[in-house]
Amino acid sequence: MAAIKVHGYHASTATVMVLCCLNEKEVEYELVLVDLPTGAHKKPEYLALNPFGVVPTIQDGDLTLYESRAIIRYLAKKFQGQGTDLLGSTLSEEALVYQWCEVEGQSFNPPALSIVSQILVVPMRGGSTDEAAVEMNVEKLEKVLDIYEERLSKSKYLAGDFFSLADLQHLPCTHYLVNACGKGDLISSRKHVNAWWEDISSRPTWKKVAENMKFG
Amino acid sequence: MAAIKVHGYHASTATVMVLCCLNEKEVEYELVLVDLPTGAHKKPEYLALNPFGVVPTIQDGDLTLYESRAIIRYLAKKFQGQGTDLLGSTLSEEALVYQWCEVEGQSFNPPALSIVSQILVVPMRGGSTDEAAVEMNVEKLEKVLDIYEERLSKSKYLAGDFFSLADLQHLPCTHYLVNACGKGDLISSRKHVNAWWEDISSRPTWKKVAENMKFG
Repeated sequence: MAAIKVHGYHASTATVMVLCCLNEKEVEYELVLVDLPTGAHKKPEYLALNPFGVVPTIQDGDLTLYESRAIIRYLAKKFQGQGTDLLGSTLSEEALVYQWCEVEGQSFNPPALSIVSQILVVPMRGGSTDEAAVEMNVEKLEKVLDIYEERLSKSKYLAGDFFSLADLQHLPCTHYLVNACGKGDLISSRKHVNAWWEDISSRPTWKKVAENMKFG
Repeated sequence: MAAIKVHGYHASTATVMVLCCLNEKEVEYELVLVDLPTGAHKKPEYLALNPFGVVPTIQDGDLTLYESRAIIRYLAKKFQGQGTDLLGSTLSEEALVYQWCEVEGQSFNPPALSIVSQILVVPMRGGSTDEAAVEMNVEKLEKVLDIYEERLSKSKYLAGDFFSLADLQHLPCTHYLVNACGKGDLISSRKHVNAWWEDISSRPTWKKVAENMKFG
C-alpha cells in the first residue's frame, strides 16, 4: 500500500495534528511541503486539491481529504485496531470523544489560535500584536479552561480515562501557547489541566512532531 | 425504550439541528424547554447537565451529551439503518461527510451566525445592529459560498450524491439568513447553491421543525 501523502507545513497547527495522529496509528506517511511563507497554499496546483487554500490535505489512494479534524477522524476509523485506539471502545465513549472534539473546535481553538496568531504570526509578517485582542481572548480561554479543570478533576482525559482524538486535538495550539507565546500560566495555574498537559505533551508521538514546529 | 430527552429551545439553531436529525432518523424524542430568554441555560440545574451553559443537551439512557454536531453524529451512528442514512455507505463517503461538516462548523457557521446574531438577536435585546460587522461577515460568507457553488455544480449535495449530516448542519442558520435576515440573495444569486437550498429546505423533516423557529 502506498504511503498516505500529507500536503502540509511543519509549523501549521492543523498539519501537526494530523501528523501526530498518523504517528499514534503507526501509519506511514509522506509529508509534501506546502510552503506557506511563499504562498504555495494559494497557488492553482494546491487549490485544485483544497479550494479553501489552507493546509493540510491528505491523499490516500483515490481519496483527497481536507479539514484536519475530519482527517484524524478518518484515520482513527480506518486504522481502528492498529496503534493507539483514539475513539474509545463503545458508542457512548465515542460520542463523548466527539463532544470534546467539538468543544476544542468551537470553544477552545478560536481564542487559543487568535492568541497564537497575534503573538506569533502577526509580528512575523511585520505587524504589531493587538494587545487588546490578546487580552480579550485570554479571558475567553480562561473560562473554557475553568470548565476543563473541573472535568479533568473527575477523569484523567477529556472524554474519559483514555487518551483520544479529543486530547490530541489540543496539542498543537497549546504547545505554541506554552512554549512560544509566554502563556504557560494559563495551563500551570490549573492543577488538573497542568497534569493533563504534562501527560499528553510527553507522548513520544507528539514530541516527534513538536520538535519540527518552527516557522521559516 | 424511553424517548431521548432534548434539553433545548425551539428557536436555537443548534437545537433544531438536533431535532431535524431525530426526525430524519425517525426517533422519538421529548423536547424539554430550556427557556433562553429567562436565562434558564445559566441556572445550576442546567449547568449540571452542560457546564458551558448552551443548548442543546440530550439524555439517552445513561448518556448525557452536548455539542449539537457531536449529538447528530451519535444519532446517525446509533440509528444507522433506520430512517435516512446520513453518513454515506463507505468509509471514504463518511470521510467526505465529516469534511463538509467541519467546513460548516469552521468556515460557514462563524460568519453566518454572526450575521444572524447582529440582525436578529442584538435588536431583540435592545441593542443596535453593527452594520460594519454584518458587511464584513457577508464578505466572508460570499467567499465560502463561491466554493460551495463550484462544489455543488459537480455533486448534488455537499459530500456527494446523497443528503447527509453535512447538508443538514446548514439548515438552521441558512433558514434565518434567508427567511428572517433579508439575506436570501446570498443563496439565490448562486445557481447551484440555490437549487441545493430549495431541495434540502423542502424536506418534510426540516419543515416540521422550521415552522417553530420563532423567538419568544
